[in-house]
Amino acid sequence: KWHRDMYLLEVLFKNPQIHVKNPHLDTMEEDVLYHFNLGTKTHNLPEMFGDIKFVCVGGSANRMKSFAQFIQQELALPGNMDNITDICEGTDRYSMYKVYFLSVYPGMGVPSISIMLHELIKLLHHARCIDFALFRIGTSGGVGLEPGTVVVTDKEVDCFFRAQFEQVVLGKVITRSTELDVGVSKELLQCSSELDDVPTVIGNTMCTSDFYEGNHITSPTAVHSATQKP
Amino acid sequence: KWHRDMYLLEVLFKNPQIHVKNPHLDTMEEDVLYHFNLGTKTHNLPEMFGDIKFVCVGGSANRMKSFAQFIQQELALPGNMDNITDICEGTDRYSMYKVYFLSVYPGMGVPSISIMLHELIKLLHHARCIDFALFRIGTSGGVGLEPGTVVVTDKEVDCFFRAQFEQVVLGKVITRSTELDVGVSKELLQCSSELDDVPTVIGNTMCTSDFYEGNHITSPTAVHSATQKP
Repeated sequence: KWHRDMYLLEVLFKNPQIHVKNPHLDTMEEDVLYHFNLGTKTHNLPEMFGDIKFVCVGGSANRMKSFAQFIQQELALPGNMDNITDICEGTDRYSMYKVYFLSVYPGMGVPSISIMLHELIKLLHHARCIDFALFRIGTSGGVGLEPGTVVVTDKEVDCFFRAQFEQVVLGKVITRSTELDVGVSKELLQCSSELDDVPTVIGNTMCTSDFYEGNHITSPTAVHSATQKP
Repeated sequence: KWHRDMYLLEVLFKNPQIHVKNPHLDTMEEDVLYHFNLGTKTHNLPEMFGDIKFVCVGGSANRMKSFAQFIQQELALPGNMDNITDICEGTDRYSMYKVYFLSVYPGMGVPSISIMLHELIKLLHHARCIDFALFRIGTSGGVGLEPGTVVVTDKEVDCFFRAQFEQVVLGKVITRSTELDVGVSKELLQCSSELDDVPTVIGNTMCTSDFYEGNHITSPTAVHSATQKP
């Protein structure tokens, strides 16, 4: 069985502190995070982002704005929900909303999200954030699951069902693991068990480079990602 | 020598008529072009787009709007330039402006542009467009060329300098040619020779999946694509 309207939750990153391997980063006079329209000289990043503990990325831009507003309401946070502004409004590449956590629209596809992750990880580094988690949230197709099921991804598979991500860096193929944080996945599953009417499972998620032709499973409508039962 | 501020021009597609190979397309009751927020039932596509002879895609969204306004002014076309509206304003995925030609922002990266091309080619098919050309325009890095040079791309190379595009369709690797239309390239080069101060060459363009790490040439700033002298 193939369904739209699965919900997926992936923990992209969980670390007590960002360890950026680039040794030049801290000696740069200025670091311009071009696609966010932010920079170390033009913005006080620790003041703006130093308290961030959660980053949620997903699409579309309007959906990430609604999500930020929803969380503001759910947590009864102060501030006028209607006045929430796009931190990246100076650029037309990404959208970013801050309401206790960060809600980011990274565009569509891996190349677009990779630019965002590069700049986001540098942003969190410059802001001296500690003890935070990055999530991707979104809808997806699903295999063998009832519509409405929340799938917490434990690993991503590529278009060949391999649990790896191939990246070409300066002409060399680098293979990275796609196994996500087990601790946070279990915590999320535990949370769901305390809620009614939120059927939640841990599963794999397929990520391909072509919305219309890349997915393994022939489906009447093209799907963004295929979630399989573990 | 490596420079930003090259301008590249790629003829993606040139055909007297679109031949869509999907046999089911014409028997569908409705075709929803989801990411454009357009459809065959909700919009009169032949009336809206039937006269299109040129489609230019590039980024960013604001830049494609400015480009449409610039062309409207250059060609002294009727209509108020400031009132130009985003045809895709009902969605937050892409932007599209029509001023005699179509000016489209397809997001960043191949997966994002591939969704756009799927829906654009179907759009032109449904609109019964004939004798048109698709271009990608944009800035890029350049090797061995003076800043300000316009490069008309004759073929794309991938991150390994191969003149091919690998696409995975339902788990099978399909390799497609990246040689672009020679006739239109020569026409564009001919046009440029009639203009002053527009140094123009025909060259290759590199397209990678990672803005920051995918390009072959180590450069102080990451670049979107590398244009080589032929």
